[in-house]
Amino acid sequence: MAYPGYGAPPAGQDPLYGYFTAVAGQDGQISADELQQCLTQSGMAGSYKPFSLETCRLMISMLDRDMSGTMGFHEFKELSNVLSGWKATFMSYDRDHSGTVEGPELQHALTAMGFNLSPQAMNIIMKRNSTNGRIGFDDFITCCIRVRALTDQFRRRDTSHSGQAMFQYDDFMQVTMSL
Amino acid sequence: MAYPGYGAPPAGQDPLYGYFTAVAGQDGQISADELQQCLTQSGMAGSYKPFSLETCRLMISMLDRDMSGTMGFHEFKELSNVLSGWKATFMSYDRDHSGTVEGPELQHALTAMGFNLSPQAMNIIMKRNSTNGRIGFDDFITCCIRVRALTDQFRRRDTSHSGQAMFQYDDFMQVTMSL
Repeated sequence: MAYPGYGAPPAGQDPLYGYFTAVAGQDGQISADELQQCLTQSGMAGSYKPFSLETCRLMISMLDRDMSGTMGFHEFKELSNVLSGWKATFMSYDRDHSGTVEGPELQHALTAMGFNLSPQAMNIIMKRNSTNGRIGFDDFITCCIRVRALTDQFRRRDTSHSGQAMFQYDDFMQVTMSL
Repeated sequence: MAYPGYGAPPAGQDPLYGYFTAVAGQDGQISADELQQCLTQSGMAGSYKPFSLETCRLMISMLDRDMSGTMGFHEFKELSNVLSGWKATFMSYDRDHSGTVEGPELQHALTAMGFNLSPQAMNIIMKRNSTNGRIGFDDFITCCIRVRALTDQFRRRDTSHSGQAMFQYDDFMQVTMSL
C-alpha cells in the first residue's frame, strides 16, 4: 500500500493528490459530485465524455467500505488505477475513435478480464448497457464496475466454491441495491 | 388485459397511443431513446426533469420479458400506470416543489409500498440514490423500479417462502445486471 491509512498525505509529487485536495473539504472526503469534478479535472475520461453523476455514485459505492457515501484519497487513488486499465481496454476496441464500442467487444473485454458468463448473461449485459447497439465509455465503465463488484460479492457467499450461493432477502437487497 | 396481444391497436381514444405510435416504427416497438422521447412528450415527468436515458433503459429492462431490448405499446401502457402511482407518491413528499425529497422520505415510501427492509439496507439505498442527501424524481423512480423488480426476482427463487434463496452464479449475474 503506497499510502498508509486513509486520508494520509501521500508523497508530494502525486498530481492526483492536487486534484483531490482541491475539491475535498477539511475532512479529506469527496462526495459523488466532487468526484465527478475531480475525474473531469484530472482528465481521467480523456477525450471521452465526462462521467455521469450516476456513474460517480456507483464508483463511490464500489469502494465505500464504511458506507459513508464519500471517498477518501486512498480510495480515489485505487479507483484511478482501475479506471486507467479499463480505459486502455476501451481505447483498444474503439479503433475508429467514435467514443463507442459494440456489444461483442464488451463481451470480449469481460471474457478477457476472466469473467465466465453464459451467452444469455452476456446478451443481457450488452442489451442493458447499450443504446441502439453502441456502448459509450461511461456505460462500459459502469458495466465493468458492476460485473466485478457483483462477482466479488457472490464469491464471498459461495464459500464452498460450488458456483452457487444462498442469500437472505435483506442481504440480497443490500448487495444489489448498492451496485 | 385491456389490449389483447402485444402491439394490438387499442381503442382509438387513448392519448398515450398517439405518443407511442409517433416514435415507434413499423414493428410497433420502441428503444430506450425513443421511450425517453415518448415520456417527455406525454408529460410523464410533469414539471420534473425528463427521465435520463439510463433510467429509460432500466424501465425497458424491467418489463422486457422477451429480452428484445425494446418495448411494445402494451408494456408502455403498463409502465405509464406504474409511473403515475410513483409520481403521485413523490409529489406528496415534495411539498415545497423543490424537485427533490430527503432520504427518510424515500424510506417511508418504500415501507408504504410494502417492502420490509432493515435500517442498514434502507441506509444503503438512501446513500446510493441521493446526492448530498437529496433524491431527485429520476433517482426516486430508479429506486422504486429496482427494489420492486429485485424483490420480485428474489421471491421467484424463494419457493419455500423462507426469506432465503439459492442462486447459481450465472443466474445471479443475469438478474442483477439486468436491473
